[in-house]
Amino acid sequence: MPDQFHGWVAHSPTTPLTFTTFTPKPFTPTDIEVQITHCGICGTDLHTLRSGWGPTDYPCVVGHEIIGIVTRIGSAVQTSSSSSSSSSSPLHLGDRVGIGAQTLSCLQPTCTACASGRENYCPRMIATYNSRYPDPTANDKKNSRTGPKTYGGFAQTWRGPAAFVFRIPSAIPSAAAAPLLCAGVTVFSPLRKYGAGPGKTVAVVGIGGLGHLGILFAKAMGCDRVIGISRTGRKKVDVVEKMGADEFIATEEETGWERRWARTVDVMICTVDGDEMPLGKYLRLLRVEGTFVLVGAPETPLPRIRAWDLIAKGVVVTGSNVGSREDVREMLQVAAEKGVVPWVERRPMEEVNAALRDMEAGRARFRYVLENRGEGEGRESRVVSIRSIL
Amino acid sequence: MPDQFHGWVAHSPTTPLTFTTFTPKPFTPTDIEVQITHCGICGTDLHTLRSGWGPTDYPCVVGHEIIGIVTRIGSAVQTSSSSSSSSSSPLHLGDRVGIGAQTLSCLQPTCTACASGRENYCPRMIATYNSRYPDPTANDKKNSRTGPKTYGGFAQTWRGPAAFVFRIPSAIPSAAAAPLLCAGVTVFSPLRKYGAGPGKTVAVVGIGGLGHLGILFAKAMGCDRVIGISRTGRKKVDVVEKMGADEFIATEEETGWERRWARTVDVMICTVDGDEMPLGKYLRLLRVEGTFVLVGAPETPLPRIRAWDLIAKGVVVTGSNVGSREDVREMLQVAAEKGVVPWVERRPMEEVNAALRDMEAGRARFRYVLENRGEGEGRESRVVSIRSIL
Repeated sequence: MPDQFHGWVAHSPTTPLTFTTFTPKPFTPTDIEVQITHCGICGTDLHTLRSGWGPTDYPCVVGHEIIGIVTRIGSAVQTSSSSSSSSSSPLHLGDRVGIGAQTLSCLQPTCTACASGRENYCPRMIATYNSRYPDPTANDKKNSRTGPKTYGGFAQTWRGPAAFVFRIPSAIPSAAAAPLLCAGVTVFSPLRKYGAGPGKTVAVVGIGGLGHLGILFAKAMGCDRVIGISRTGRKKVDVVEKMGADEFIATEEETGWERRWARTVDVMICTVDGDEMPLGKYLRLLRVEGTFVLVGAPETPLPRIRAWDLIAKGVVVTGSNVGSREDVREMLQVAAEKGVVPWVERRPMEEVNAALRDMEAGRARFRYVLENRGEGEGRESRVVSIRSIL
Repeated sequence: MPDQFHGWVAHSPTTPLTFTTFTPKPFTPTDIEVQITHCGICGTDLHTLRSGWGPTDYPCVVGHEIIGIVTRIGSAVQTSSSSSSSSSSPLHLGDRVGIGAQTLSCLQPTCTACASGRENYCPRMIATYNSRYPDPTANDKKNSRTGPKTYGGFAQTWRGPAAFVFRIPSAIPSAAAAPLLCAGVTVFSPLRKYGAGPGKTVAVVGIGGLGHLGILFAKAMGCDRVIGISRTGRKKVDVVEKMGADEFIATEEETGWERRWARTVDVMICTVDGDEMPLGKYLRLLRVEGTFVLVGAPETPLPRIRAWDLIAKGVVVTGSNVGSREDVREMLQVAAEKGVVPWVERRPMEEVNAALRDMEAGRARFRYVLENRGEGEGRESRVVSIRSIL
């Protein structure tokens, strides 16, 4: 009999999650198991649950901002970890760890992405849920359409490759750490890549789970000026200022903002996934050779832009997909050292369906983090004192 | 009485050019005058003549791939040139020089573009035609809507600021030099910026005036593989190979090319200005973090693309506007050293209207260069021997 885990399982785009059993991947020597204590709710969870980016492979357990305690370690994990300084330091039973949106890549030296530390762009990147591991029984070992399914963090237990598991610095409480694993690194990676720091102005479009972390990290990285941008909500000003933003623009409640702020922004992180963003106006805000980075993915194509919007200033439109493992480690380091603390609302995991509805309705301020408060609480005793500061 | 120059003047979007007089800017101490011997025909000339990118300020003299002989030098030119090593070396009467698409920028130390050697992105960039110099009599000196008009190279004489005039290396014949001033630097600048060279694969979309120079420069810069891409014309294969391309794709005559060539290209230079390019498929050709650069500007907005096309590989979509003065100088150096010779057809400037029709019809192989063969020929005696090698 294969192992059975318990979790909140989706069976269709329209029905609520039900607490039931699911079959995890077979345990292999490179895997670990984690008793899940916390899991953030990410926009990707919503897109996937409703098959918004394409048909979801139900049954599905979403959640890829996972924090928990290591309860089982494969026989090959210690060895492989200790032999590579670029990987995380060796894991031990009882360690507090996190798992983000990616659970594996090919990690082959012949892969230009993996070989250059950009495993988040590996063509065989495997997502933490709604994806499949390579099929060990298939002739084509690379075929990942028949292998074991990946299951995420809306559950009691997670099992998967140790290679993409990260130790959480002791300074970061678990509920705060959860959103860092996906939302945090998703904004941190392009901020770092495109030079956010002293002397630079960063704008963050969308003040939600990703966006508020964009503001927090841009300030932590020492940017001169951080601008929060939202469609509505002048009333958000106070909140955004508390996050550290220097300016706020409500694009649908002001006129002429695209002229007033023209050529002032070096890096713009666009976290929204709504369908009709004023992309051409956003580009006007960029300085010469400035960068616009999509980290949110609308379900419909982007608006048309004019070639001159790109040519006249040499500006860049690009996208960024979570981050590399190196990005995750640096991001956790910066968060620990600079005290970047996501604004979260903790909810019992039993409330997952209500929390998803609230998230969909835009009520998260600014990230829901589900907690396993029952059996998991005991296992997490070593971090209770840290969590209580939230 | 203001000075009068003779040239081929456009008076409306629909009438042919007529040979008549026009009034150049007043001569100032920082200006020079050039007896025009050659002028290439660029796609921008066509867009401007038909008011394709917006209303043109008729009367207009187009042409911004100008080669000629210096016949007059303002009193401040020698001084300013010799005091700055970053500018071109001092100009002398009789020098063979070129003028490209840009004739001035603000050049102020407070301008982030100009101060960092990116004067092609200066917000006060002044184009070689259909633009206006700052008005010396206006209260707001920066106002360039009332200043003297700029006039291009379909004429006998050019007058303008020495700061954007380039000496032509003796190794480059005049007819070959002309297209380098706009088309050449327009492809060279992004190739250089995005790392074209050994180990890299470059694709060039559109095999025309810009595109064939993209292939020539990519090879001259040592790229491992250069791919020519066109909508039609498998028959172009031989020609493209003669230019040095390693591969050719005819996107409307092949199927599955976007899968066959997926993830093989580091830098893609898109020179076409047609309206319905398969942008999403082009992006599939890019490697992780590859770059797609628009240098041709369609008159209608770009096709919609999906956010995932950018996010999944972290690819960049950008544009590039001609090049900086430093780019022009480096480009001329590379052309001279590596023997980059544009494929041109020389035509008497009297045939300008026929040449424009042929250009519009796509008959240029691959650049028309107009020549002043009358009075100008004598003035150009010093370069006749060089030109004859073409």
